[in-house]
Amino acid sequence: MKEWITGRNPVFETLRAKRRHFFTLLVQQDLRVEGRLKESVELARQYKLPVRMATKQQLGQIDRHNQGVALEANDYPYVTLEDMISYSQEQDEAPFFLLLDLIQDPQNLGALLRTAELMRVHGVIIPSSQAAQVTPAVVSASSGASEHLMIAQYNLVQAIQRLKALDLWVYGLDMDQRSKTPAQLSMKGGVALVVGNEGEGLRSLVRKNCDEIMRLPQYGKIDSLNAAVAGSIALYLARQTRTSS
Amino acid sequence: MKEWITGRNPVFETLRAKRRHFFTLLVQQDLRVEGRLKESVELARQYKLPVRMATKQQLGQIDRHNQGVALEANDYPYVTLEDMISYSQEQDEAPFFLLLDLIQDPQNLGALLRTAELMRVHGVIIPSSQAAQVTPAVVSASSGASEHLMIAQYNLVQAIQRLKALDLWVYGLDMDQRSKTPAQLSMKGGVALVVGNEGEGLRSLVRKNCDEIMRLPQYGKIDSLNAAVAGSIALYLARQTRTSS
Repeated sequence: MKEWITGRNPVFETLRAKRRHFFTLLVQQDLRVEGRLKESVELARQYKLPVRMATKQQLGQIDRHNQGVALEANDYPYVTLEDMISYSQEQDEAPFFLLLDLIQDPQNLGALLRTAELMRVHGVIIPSSQAAQVTPAVVSASSGASEHLMIAQYNLVQAIQRLKALDLWVYGLDMDQRSKTPAQLSMKGGVALVVGNEGEGLRSLVRKNCDEIMRLPQYGKIDSLNAAVAGSIALYLARQTRTSS
Repeated sequence: MKEWITGRNPVFETLRAKRRHFFTLLVQQDLRVEGRLKESVELARQYKLPVRMATKQQLGQIDRHNQGVALEANDYPYVTLEDMISYSQEQDEAPFFLLLDLIQDPQNLGALLRTAELMRVHGVIIPSSQAAQVTPAVVSASSGASEHLMIAQYNLVQAIQRLKALDLWVYGLDMDQRSKTPAQLSMKGGVALVVGNEGEGLRSLVRKNCDEIMRLPQYGKIDSLNAAVAGSIALYLARQTRTSS
């Protein structure tokens, strides 16, 4: 399936990562070609990809938030769980995975992928249904981070069981007041972090399969942190623990 | 100016915080009144506020994401910088402020307010122009956190200078590789955290007025963390430092 990636960072990162098959790069005809846009055009030329000028209206029909550029490409290149595990084992540190349990909002999925890429997570596992998938809107919300990440679609409970066999520790992020805070836990060694749904948190079977439930301490009057923010804080803390070790 | 707040958490938190003048509560006629919705209706009755049934279509005309409830209220009750400072001085800990330098996206502003409320920030300062203001979309994105927060509109540079006179330390969040990381800094004592614009970061005059520039270490290929995520991580770290001290 072909799809359109739009926006300067997302298009540039998609071209740079070079993990999809590309068809056409459309550039708004009256724009100055500089910065990320210039770099994208140069990459397209290098790949011998047709670069076509388009009107603002033509680009607007593809996506309202196009920033003057659109890339036609194959759909998102998911990897298998086993490829992801192999990739992780080639890194010079213990495995570091992010598992997302039914994240619904493309903005939240994008934000989590963006943080995951910047915290050098080795792979992300999402369910193949009932959850947001890596659509062009998610590529945009991730600022193109999706293109540099290994992402697998897999049953979460089965994925957790597979990862546990690799001797890594599975932390589920939840609001349960009885659970431990990051300060009370050591996230050294192999880590898989599981982030729950925006409203309901972790499903009970997913929760039950985690080695440890972790909560971020909260001090306010409202319900809870946004799922993408909570997941991002946990990713940051996990990365700091492993990098300072 | 009257405006409509929609969504179950935003409406409930607005009613509960009771800082606005309310006019009407609309509830979708065919919905079961339970949970947050029930609590909102009970608060409205307690405040002697008219509760009216509305059709799905009527609510849809107010806002597409209404979750079956809409509250007509006065616009956002900003406070003055001096009221915010007085409020902070009544708390049993050193001052803790968040300053936002030209955040553009209502989703980002809402996410930052949500984290700020949960990390018990004493006040938030935003510029009164060229930046997202606390509109109903922001109230929704903050999950109603805006209603429990002291928020002032003020010139950022002047606000920083006023806060410095109170003997607190102003940290600007930036990507500059030469700046220190949270691990290299002590955020104990009075803290004001300044988060920059989504694309450009801190304006140079704002930056120049900070006591210290702080960066969050990043390890990926893409540009940078989302501004709301970066600000949220910094708020979390600042809260942890003061709470564990």
